[in-house]
Amino acid sequence: MLDWLKGYDRHMLVQDLSAAVIVTLMLIPQSLAYAMLAGLPPEVGLYASILPLIAYGVFGSSRTLSVGPVAVLSLMVASTLGQLSLQGVHYLHGSLALALMSGAWLLVFGLLRLGFVAHFISHPVMSGFISASALLITVSQLGPLLGLRLQGEQLWPLVSLFQQASAVQWVTFVISIVCLGVLFWSRARLKPVLVKAGLSLGLSTALVRMVPAVLVVLGILVSMLADFSSLGVAVVGQVPAGLPALSWPAWSELPWRALVLPSLLLALVGFVESVSVGQTLAAKRRQRISANQELIGLGVSNLVSGLSGGMPVTGGFARSVVNFDAGAQTPAAGVFTALGITVAGLWFAPLLATLPKAILAATIVVAVLGLFDLSLFRHTWRFSRADFIALSLTFVVTLLVNVELGLLAGIAGSLVLHVYHSYKPHWAEVGLIQGTEHFRNRNRHVVLLDDTLLCLRIDESLYFANAAQLEDVVARLVSQRPKVKHVVVQCSAVNRIDASALDSLLMINERLRIAGVGFHLAEIKGPVMDRLNQSELVHVLNGQIFLTLYQGWQALRASDASSSTSLLLQETYSHENRT
Amino acid sequence: MLDWLKGYDRHMLVQDLSAAVIVTLMLIPQSLAYAMLAGLPPEVGLYASILPLIAYGVFGSSRTLSVGPVAVLSLMVASTLGQLSLQGVHYLHGSLALALMSGAWLLVFGLLRLGFVAHFISHPVMSGFISASALLITVSQLGPLLGLRLQGEQLWPLVSLFQQASAVQWVTFVISIVCLGVLFWSRARLKPVLVKAGLSLGLSTALVRMVPAVLVVLGILVSMLADFSSLGVAVVGQVPAGLPALSWPAWSELPWRALVLPSLLLALVGFVESVSVGQTLAAKRRQRISANQELIGLGVSNLVSGLSGGMPVTGGFARSVVNFDAGAQTPAAGVFTALGITVAGLWFAPLLATLPKAILAATIVVAVLGLFDLSLFRHTWRFSRADFIALSLTFVVTLLVNVELGLLAGIAGSLVLHVYHSYKPHWAEVGLIQGTEHFRNRNRHVVLLDDTLLCLRIDESLYFANAAQLEDVVARLVSQRPKVKHVVVQCSAVNRIDASALDSLLMINERLRIAGVGFHLAEIKGPVMDRLNQSELVHVLNGQIFLTLYQGWQALRASDASSSTSLLLQETYSHENRT
Repeated sequence: MLDWLKGYDRHMLVQDLSAAVIVTLMLIPQSLAYAMLAGLPPEVGLYASILPLIAYGVFGSSRTLSVGPVAVLSLMVASTLGQLSLQGVHYLHGSLALALMSGAWLLVFGLLRLGFVAHFISHPVMSGFISASALLITVSQLGPLLGLRLQGEQLWPLVSLFQQASAVQWVTFVISIVCLGVLFWSRARLKPVLVKAGLSLGLSTALVRMVPAVLVVLGILVSMLADFSSLGVAVVGQVPAGLPALSWPAWSELPWRALVLPSLLLALVGFVESVSVGQTLAAKRRQRISANQELIGLGVSNLVSGLSGGMPVTGGFARSVVNFDAGAQTPAAGVFTALGITVAGLWFAPLLATLPKAILAATIVVAVLGLFDLSLFRHTWRFSRADFIALSLTFVVTLLVNVELGLLAGIAGSLVLHVYHSYKPHWAEVGLIQGTEHFRNRNRHVVLLDDTLLCLRIDESLYFANAAQLEDVVARLVSQRPKVKHVVVQCSAVNRIDASALDSLLMINERLRIAGVGFHLAEIKGPVMDRLNQSELVHVLNGQIFLTLYQGWQALRASDASSSTSLLLQETYSHENRT
Repeated sequence: MLDWLKGYDRHMLVQDLSAAVIVTLMLIPQSLAYAMLAGLPPEVGLYASILPLIAYGVFGSSRTLSVGPVAVLSLMVASTLGQLSLQGVHYLHGSLALALMSGAWLLVFGLLRLGFVAHFISHPVMSGFISASALLITVSQLGPLLGLRLQGEQLWPLVSLFQQASAVQWVTFVISIVCLGVLFWSRARLKPVLVKAGLSLGLSTALVRMVPAVLVVLGILVSMLADFSSLGVAVVGQVPAGLPALSWPAWSELPWRALVLPSLLLALVGFVESVSVGQTLAAKRRQRISANQELIGLGVSNLVSGLSGGMPVTGGFARSVVNFDAGAQTPAAGVFTALGITVAGLWFAPLLATLPKAILAATIVVAVLGLFDLSLFRHTWRFSRADFIALSLTFVVTLLVNVELGLLAGIAGSLVLHVYHSYKPHWAEVGLIQGTEHFRNRNRHVVLLDDTLLCLRIDESLYFANAAQLEDVVARLVSQRPKVKHVVVQCSAVNRIDASALDSLLMINERLRIAGVGFHLAEIKGPVMDRLNQSELVHVLNGQIFLTLYQGWQALRASDASSSTSLLLQETYSHENRT
């Protein structure tokens, strides 16, 4: 905070103020909609967009991140509290408790400097989670869009829809179709039209973002004039004017133990979303954000949100991008936005009574469908099967079971796949590329080989899970090549050797010694060598340790005059073992 | 089995028969003792040493492994059934259920060819587990050794001992001291004495192994003559003569759900112990064992054991070594041993009634204390901190909490440590070692550097957990070196690149492009290159991909005539960043 307060000037003030006006107009419908998505009264969304923004401005590290309710967290709140079957005021208190608890997690993680945990959610897992969440959110909005009360969590509303299809409320349906049409059209086509009409690119972008606010205002007016409510259209209803009161959930009546894990996952997802948005924006202006400072900023924001009648919050993508595009220079823009929403809450909240819920549902659907990315599956499949499995696992479990389990399955699955990969390491028999001192896989390159010398490259750190594999490979190759006098293992890809692998190396050394074959190591990295120097292997090794494999090749070939070197041609390429 | 039946001859028969006699004499006291350790009637140990041996002979892959009750599995059975507070016949049925369930796990794993899972228990974890188990077993035998009834699991008997110290049963104590003295002395000293007396080494070894059997016979006789039982010495009591009857646990009265995880761990520990013993012995005779066949053999053995009134079994170390040393050539030796134990069960079981329990306890303690290895902690500490943590974690949790959790904590801990290692990868700025084409860490070696060229080596596969780190390292180094025109990443230690890391490479490429710096890759392995060829990186890369870093060095230096090359001396060695 002190960073930017020093250089604050009038120019920055104007930019921050104008950004705040634009963001406020965008945030009001969004906050109402996300509160509704979480199953909460609409004013909760407004409350969560006031004090948390100010808290983030003081404690956060990103200059342009805009904190508030976001779609995915709202879905997670709805899923968690839905599973616990909380009702009425308990549901509200459950949401406050989730905000407080996830705020506490974030704050503790920040103080313990555990910002790095965000890296353990891989990009495919996060993408799968977001895409599945987008679908779930869309399904959850089908009820309001069609004027139906659909039952169930996850994908069950679809079944419910099938049963009630005949009861669709047609006025609501028409409102939804019109709003969806306008919103999709304005997202895809409005900007070029405005630019062509002579407006600046920045202003055009801002105006496009304002469309939902315009729809809300029009919706309120038309609904009031046509008395939609009497036609059976569900409206928002009475929203109390005023400011959030300090509140404290009734812990004794809450199943708060059941909220521990969900609040941790809320914290994790919120943190990852916020950091990725913050990093993207910071990179554009060559600024940096600190993951640990970010944890503290988000932690305080959530605590404040929970204390002031709000809901779990984080740095949202859409709102932050708008803030950034609108020219926000410092967190002061967030503070001004908070003031804007306070004004709205104080004076305009009662006007929302006649707003059809279908309009809010339409804004949610249009916002989240942009997050669903089908091409990701194709790209990931082409690039890496393991990533594809992690992505699909997260997507399917999130969609079919629940969001918490989907995320956990993705994290666990990607870690297991990572370990599984290294369990059966890739290895290659290497030979010298003529005219260089470089050794490559004999099955991929034209290389020089020597009958008496077996040069192996192991492409993995040696540790407990794969230690026995090296024993097998060496034993098999040596038994197939009676002429081999020396085995040299090129360790350029061996980044670690643990105690189990050391035992395996000792075993290989012993077996080769008995068979009268030398066992040599080459290109061992410094840190690995430091370790080996502490072990008995360096004392009992039946061979030498070479700085480079080329030096080993020269030394060991020279020692045996009868050796024959053969130039291997590309024809030996085999698909069985490629490097 | 068909393997060895074809070549079976008279010589092998004689060797197998004589091995069987020796093993039988050793196994009888051991089987009784391990049944007692598991809290079961002594005859259960005998039953578990009959049909399971025959089943293993038919389905197993090791020629010399001897299957039966072992100390660690007995401890695990006692711990599992003790926690469930089963009594009397339910306790017995619990043990049968554990044998059947772990047999089923082993069989299923074998049929699914999951033999590789054994590799996920690292050597330090297994050592820590075995050492802690040895201490727990010793503590559990203090009661029988001192003639006390000590309460509690884990280390609690020590507290109980402290409270009852005054009630020590002195006759029992004297018997224990004498037996322990004889057993320790014979293990350490008897063999040289016998060899000096002119016996062959093999016969001496066999006779040393026979000492417990001799003690048992002497114990029975002396106890009968002196009527130890009337002096308050606990004796084995009535053992029914006869053969095991087919049995089936009363599942409906068992908390069998609570046995699912313990039986899985029993299967895992039994498998790992058996495979490591089998591999050690097979290697001595240049034979091989198949992990999957081994799973099937052990699975059937345990199923048979559970059906014939036995307990969980596996290939034991001591008994297999004796079998091997005694000259067993084929699994037929195991079948003969089974016949020997059947004879003992049929005719000699009733004679065991007067055997003092303290003698069995002494044989257990002497057998397991050999498994406790304190020097392991020191060696592991010196070699690797991560292995030491895994070792200590397993040891402490096994000792203080329980055996199942100890093993699970060890497995999970070592996997987490493995992943944690790769989260913050080691990296080095490398330079050319003069007179070679080899590049090494500038902080460890005297190397040539070029001001305009930044050559980096990353010592880890690039994946989601560490992808962001590379971004940081490149950004920091480039910002510190304004003269740098090209960044070359040497990928010799990069064994995999996943989708998250690909995103990071694209990000680095984009940032360097904006900064006017070239981004090159060198020494990419074949499988990694195959992947990259599927990605957009190869199309947008702001630089080249070199086969060797040396080629990159030549190409990029030549392109800029003003570059200055400096010979860096060893003085720049810094401890901050070593390779």
